[in-house]
Amino acid sequence: MKRHLLEAADLDRDDATLVLDTAAQIESALAGREVKKLPTLRGRTVVNLFYEDSTRTRISFELAAKRLSADVINFSAKGSSVSKGESLKDTALTLEAMGSDAIVVRHSASGAPHRLAQWVAGSVVNAGDGTHEHPTQALLDAYTIRQRLGRLDGVRVVIVGDVLHSRVARSNVWLLATLGAEVTLVAPPTLLPVGVGSWPVQVSYDLDAVLPKADVVMMLRVQGERMNASFFPSAREYSRRYGLDGRRMAALADDAIVMHPGPMNRGMEIAAEVADSARSTIVDQVGNGVSVRMAVLYLLLGGASASE
Amino acid sequence: MKRHLLEAADLDRDDATLVLDTAAQIESALAGREVKKLPTLRGRTVVNLFYEDSTRTRISFELAAKRLSADVINFSAKGSSVSKGESLKDTALTLEAMGSDAIVVRHSASGAPHRLAQWVAGSVVNAGDGTHEHPTQALLDAYTIRQRLGRLDGVRVVIVGDVLHSRVARSNVWLLATLGAEVTLVAPPTLLPVGVGSWPVQVSYDLDAVLPKADVVMMLRVQGERMNASFFPSAREYSRRYGLDGRRMAALADDAIVMHPGPMNRGMEIAAEVADSARSTIVDQVGNGVSVRMAVLYLLLGGASASE
Amino acid sequence: MKRHLLEAADLDRDDATLVLDTAAQIESALAGREVKKLPTLRGRTVVNLFYEDSTRTRISFELAAKRLSADVINFSAKGSSVSKGESLKDTALTLEAMGSDAIVVRHSASGAPHRLAQWVAGSVVNAGDGTHEHPTQALLDAYTIRQRLGRLDGVRVVIVGDVLHSRVARSNVWLLATLGAEVTLVAPPTLLPVGVGSWPVQVSYDLDAVLPKADVVMMLRVQGERMNASFFPSAREYSRRYGLDGRRMAALADDAIVMHPGPMNRGMEIAAEVADSARSTIVDQVGNGVSVRMAVLYLLLGGASASE
Repeated sequence: MKRHLLEAADLDRDDATLVLDTAAQIESALAGREVKKLPTLRGRTVVNLFYEDSTRTRISFELAAKRLSADVINFSAKGSSVSKGESLKDTALTLEAMGSDAIVVRHSASGAPHRLAQWVAGSVVNAGDGTHEHPTQALLDAYTIRQRLGRLDGVRVVIVGDVLHSRVARSNVWLLATLGAEVTLVAPPTLLPVGVGSWPVQVSYDLDAVLPKADVVMMLRVQGERMNASFFPSAREYSRRYGLDGRRMAALADDAIVMHPGPMNRGMEIAAEVADSARSTIVDQVGNGVSVRMAVLYLLLGGASASE
Repeated sequence: MKRHLLEAADLDRDDATLVLDTAAQIESALAGREVKKLPTLRGRTVVNLFYEDSTRTRISFELAAKRLSADVINFSAKGSSVSKGESLKDTALTLEAMGSDAIVVRHSASGAPHRLAQWVAGSVVNAGDGTHEHPTQALLDAYTIRQRLGRLDGVRVVIVGDVLHSRVARSNVWLLATLGAEVTLVAPPTLLPVGVGSWPVQVSYDLDAVLPKADVVMMLRVQGERMNASFFPSAREYSRRYGLDGRRMAALADDAIVMHPGPMNRGMEIAAEVADSARSTIVDQVGNGVSVRMAVLYLLLGGASASE
Repeated sequence: MKRHLLEAADLDRDDATLVLDTAAQIESALAGREVKKLPTLRGRTVVNLFYEDSTRTRISFELAAKRLSADVINFSAKGSSVSKGESLKDTALTLEAMGSDAIVVRHSASGAPHRLAQWVAGSVVNAGDGTHEHPTQALLDAYTIRQRLGRLDGVRVVIVGDVLHSRVARSNVWLLATLGAEVTLVAPPTLLPVGVGSWPVQVSYDLDAVLPKADVVMMLRVQGERMNASFFPSAREYSRRYGLDGRRMAALADDAIVMHPGPMNRGMEIAAEVADSARSTIVDQVGNGVSVRMAVLYLLLGGASASE
């Protein structure tokens, strides 16, 4: 595996499968232990460098690092020297000089993790950059699909919603294609990116038409501030055409599953009865997120010395 | 002991005594150790889920968990997905899915910890909910009284101030009654709750009349924003009638003690000379808070496997 | 060494040299270890009590404490009981009662760490107080000079910029004088303190005149809010007269070094080509900061029991 995890588009089939297999091994190893920690990263430092708030993702990485016995530093860019005008480069060099072994970075600018990776000798993990990518989300989603359905090859995945602004959608499209799944995007025409014609996907505007053939329905989060920005007539209309409610869920195949990256808008893109149904993998995704991030940190930092 | 600690009103005499005795045992165990930590909760995760700021209480729980070797995650609801509209339920399910073993919750809504407890398999500890309860405060107060006076049964406790808005007062009323103490409330009529007639307490409006018979005087914090809300004529008038100054302290019995949950308004509800006197247990309360919270986390999470 | 580290002016030559030597020993000890941590402060609690934002300094102390295996509590005064009016004294007594062994304090008021030190039995480390001192910055600067030039005695150090408001300048002046270096201050007359005549320094208003004889050029950070406050005509004019650019760097002796405490304003007080040159010690300073702070915490707290 490479030194950084910057985008799902970077991962070949072997790399991606290695992450998923390692996550499964870590889960097994912990299941058999009284103390739910591995000593792999003792003495290593993981910095969570978050330029955007994301408590959920930050906590997931923080737990992953701590369960590998690393020291974790949380660096929220608000109120930091960043607000005194320090450049991303100087922040990166500072963290590296302090002995940071990995920087987990969330940034509103697409490409920020790539730039960071040019400046530091340690590892960089992209925890979401602008509308570009969120690779660990795609890895945990793939892990969850494999766990539920037993395979990824040939699995038919429908991704529904605001694809235009979604780094989750982008990362899933690239990773799922690499792993052999067949992806269909369903979105309002105004919420599809211009270049979607070159993506390894099919596109549909009719959710009801594609649901019966889906193995996986992945709902994207509606972001209120964008819904107001005239991309779409109204929230009610959005929900009617692109929301997953009980009636639509009834059209799914018997073993089809429903995914959502969270946090959900219950009643908007997903009905409560769907979110809480047995088809829903939403809670599994969260738990798998910690395992997959442990695997990523382990492979990037700790592969060499896993002994206690 | 039950799985959660939601309110002092829940605790029977045996449960409450078990917490106090366990706290005392933990203090003894640590006193004899070079390294002031116990390995009991290694590999367990405690989340501080704070919807209201309370640095003091958060740090006390954080230290308690760390001294039991747990991993601690601080989750301040500000700027989190909560502000993106995530429900308390989804936050709870997310934390549980990430492997949280206990959630310590502070919330402005009375009853929030009870709702949380319905959704998670782990333990919930109420760290203050609205005007309802703050049970670990009552436990640390009881611990402090027993430590100073040698007993709780028959001890005469006077609680003074804004009882109406005080979760500290409520938790103390229930726990002290359970442990056999006799409680008298002293407050302006406008700052007493309507249902106080059914509480196991006596009520007085004359602080000077009750002080000579008190073993314990517990001063409540005056909350400036409420003082302005016309519950009472003026801060000066409040202080004159309900503040504890040196003159009033002189009316106390020789071994009577003065308590305050902090943070104090020196010169308002309590004079500096009282706060810093030998009668004052205010600093002891803070230290005992860590021990009592260690006991609570130990009993809820760790009882089974306390071996290293 | 004393119990606290409040100011560089306090340190005699033996104390200061002990800190630098200990930092060097810690670096050697860690270099030979697989796990980059020392067990010295296991079970001890270090509180970062920050009344001003300073992510950089906070993280440096946090890493230093964690690499000595201490538990670290971050206490940002914003949104804390401090904002409810709690006094510094009550905050100090609270932290001590909770078992804090050391308080690392950053405060906007000069002298706040001294007051804190009167109230607590544990150690206080000044992490920057008003315009007064920032002693660990001076120690890490001295460490860096010694590391690069092999000595401090007789080294000619030029400190350039807003000396008036700089606690970094003050701490460096006192420590460098104690360690035998010769300090020259270069600043606009309006940005020199009134009492500078009694400091153990020379003063110059002509940067170009002093550069050729300097072994060390230490650039101070320009603080935008002060630049606007009419201390000086304009940023452009400041940069022209007091900034270090490539032309000025060329006037330096062959082995002279350039220092900056960070965060830098590239293009203002220091040009990018200077900051990134081989003469620049800026990244070394950051790394040495962690080692020096480990040495300070070790000497204040851990000297007695360094065995595992």
